Amino acid sequence: MTATAIALDVGGTHIKGAAVAADGRLRHTERWFTRAERGPEAVLQTVLDRAAELAGRFRPAAAGIAVPGIVDEAAGTAVLAANLGWRDLPVRQLLSEHLGIPVAFGHDVRAGGIAEARAGAGRGSRDFLFVPVGTGIAAALMVDGRPLTGSHTRAGELGHLVVRPGGEPCACGRRGCVETLASAAAVARRYTAATGEAGVTAERVGRRAATGDRTAATVWREAVDALADGLASAITLLDPERIVIGGGLARAGEPYFAPLRTALTARLSFQTMPELLPAELGHEAGCFGAGLLARDLLGEGAAA
Amino acid sequence: MTATAIALDVGGTHIKGAAVAADGRLRHTERWFTRAERGPEAVLQTVLDRAAELAGRFRPAAAGIAVPGIVDEAAGTAVLAANLGWRDLPVRQLLSEHLGIPVAFGHDVRAGGIAEARAGAGRGSRDFLFVPVGTGIAAALMVDGRPLTGSHTRAGELGHLVVRPGGEPCACGRRGCVETLASAAAVARRYTAATGEAGVTAERVGRRAATGDRTAATVWREAVDALADGLASAITLLDPERIVIGGGLARAGEPYFAPLRTALTARLSFQTMPELLPAELGHEAGCFGAGLLARDLLGEGAAA
Repeated sequence: MTATAIALDVGGTHIKGAAVAADGRLRHTERWFTRAERGPEAVLQTVLDRAAELAGRFRPAAAGIAVPGIVDEAAGTAVLAANLGWRDLPVRQLLSEHLGIPVAFGHDVRAGGIAEARAGAGRGSRDFLFVPVGTGIAAALMVDGRPLTGSHTRAGELGHLVVRPGGEPCACGRRGCVETLASAAAVARRYTAATGEAGVTAERVGRRAATGDRTAATVWREAVDALADGLASAITLLDPERIVIGGGLARAGEPYFAPLRTALTARLSFQTMPELLPAELGHEAGCFGAGLLARDLLGEGAAA
Repeated sequence: MTATAIALDVGGTHIKGAAVAADGRLRHTERWFTRAERGPEAVLQTVLDRAAELAGRFRPAAAGIAVPGIVDEAAGTAVLAANLGWRDLPVRQLLSEHLGIPVAFGHDVRAGGIAEARAGAGRGSRDFLFVPVGTGIAAALMVDGRPLTGSHTRAGELGHLVVRPGGEPCACGRRGCVETLASAAAVARRYTAATGEAGVTAERVGRRAATGDRTAATVWREAVDALADGLASAITLLDPERIVIGGGLARAGEPYFAPLRTALTARLSFQTMPELLPAELGHEAGCFGAGLLARDLLGEGAAA
């Protein structure tokens, strides 16, 4: 098989790689552990090595790579990816020199938003929010089909809207951010704090909430309420047509979406309630988006 | 004098009219009382009559009109302008038929944002927020030089971000919105409620705060803090380069901007503090923006 492009999505736990077929879909996906504890240079070397393997196998005309944290798409630089240890790393240039082909570079959440826009739950909508709820919470603010980056490439930090003034401390240094209650990490941490039982994932807290565990139900409801508060603020400012929720909690399905829809509706007055939908591309959204950006370099993006 | 365009800005208290000179500046401005208590049709008739007078005098090639409330720029319709009594009124078509020339139609705050972008405190910036703080509070979210409208033309309602959960009731039906503490109306109302003294304007509360009136200082500080909370949320989501504050409170100058800058800085962690600037066009911003939109119809906007 010859791929038009290859794509990589570099995360704190896994590096994902894929070949992008002629129709824009991912046809071959792999993943490797990031093992960030080895240090930033070792992580970069793994990325370059795995990309070279994919390129040797699929002979692509371009590559795309998505990176978390503060990302300067215009410069092609990972400004600060705390969980990779990367700081001011010219990722696009390094990968392009290593592979000898053009490289497209994107922010993982914004790349995911592009993928959901063209091939997922955002299809047919020009203005929507893509909100992956995982260890952290961020948003791609899709306006007229493209993600807003902001003036310093920091737009979309929905997880750091303060919804509980004076509330629990957040890793960002403030208190009461959406993330302190609504992220998967917060749900697991808060359940453990309340029960003393360690190692219970957020997904399992959700299942226990549905089967009569009152502590789980409280933690789950507080997560839903905090996310609804953050989404209500985003709706008040941005008036999106849809909100596409991704990440692990969204996979809980209606036990998550039904109370979230109710909580969000209760928080709106003159605002128009947007459609609230689960993401369609799951863990692949970022890698898929990197592949679409790579195809855009080749002038094939419009076909996706 | 022959004007290239005329411009109108329809507000709850005044209707403003102007002629737009060849350089895009307003050369002749007038204002008339809206007297909305006469009913929506009488207000519309006043707008049409005054526009026809201006057109008869200046022989413009186009007109622009800015309207408050919920405005559908694409359709040319005032969807809901509560303080004018207008609902689903096809303003652009009515004015164009009355004058016999092309008419540009805009939202008052977004038109003001366009004016500040091209000729005011937003010059040289592609991404900024224009936030007039008056009887109410709204924002024009300028992205890449243009205001975001949102999917239902309701973007930018910064005054209705909830910053005091469970706080004072807001006219919108929720509680603790920015407007309940930070608008000029709220400052005056809250000072009267605390002191029993009626008829003290927000501007005067600001002056009393600076000269040792402790109640005034408290109301003023709470207004600044609430606005800072709302702006911090907007920064977290949108990452603007500048924030341009307009309206009556901004005319207080440094007694307003100095504590606002301090409060805003204290609320940011990883976010980049934008430049915080007073608006430059004052009450004329909406009318100026309507004039620029009219000139855009004639293909002369780029010169402004």
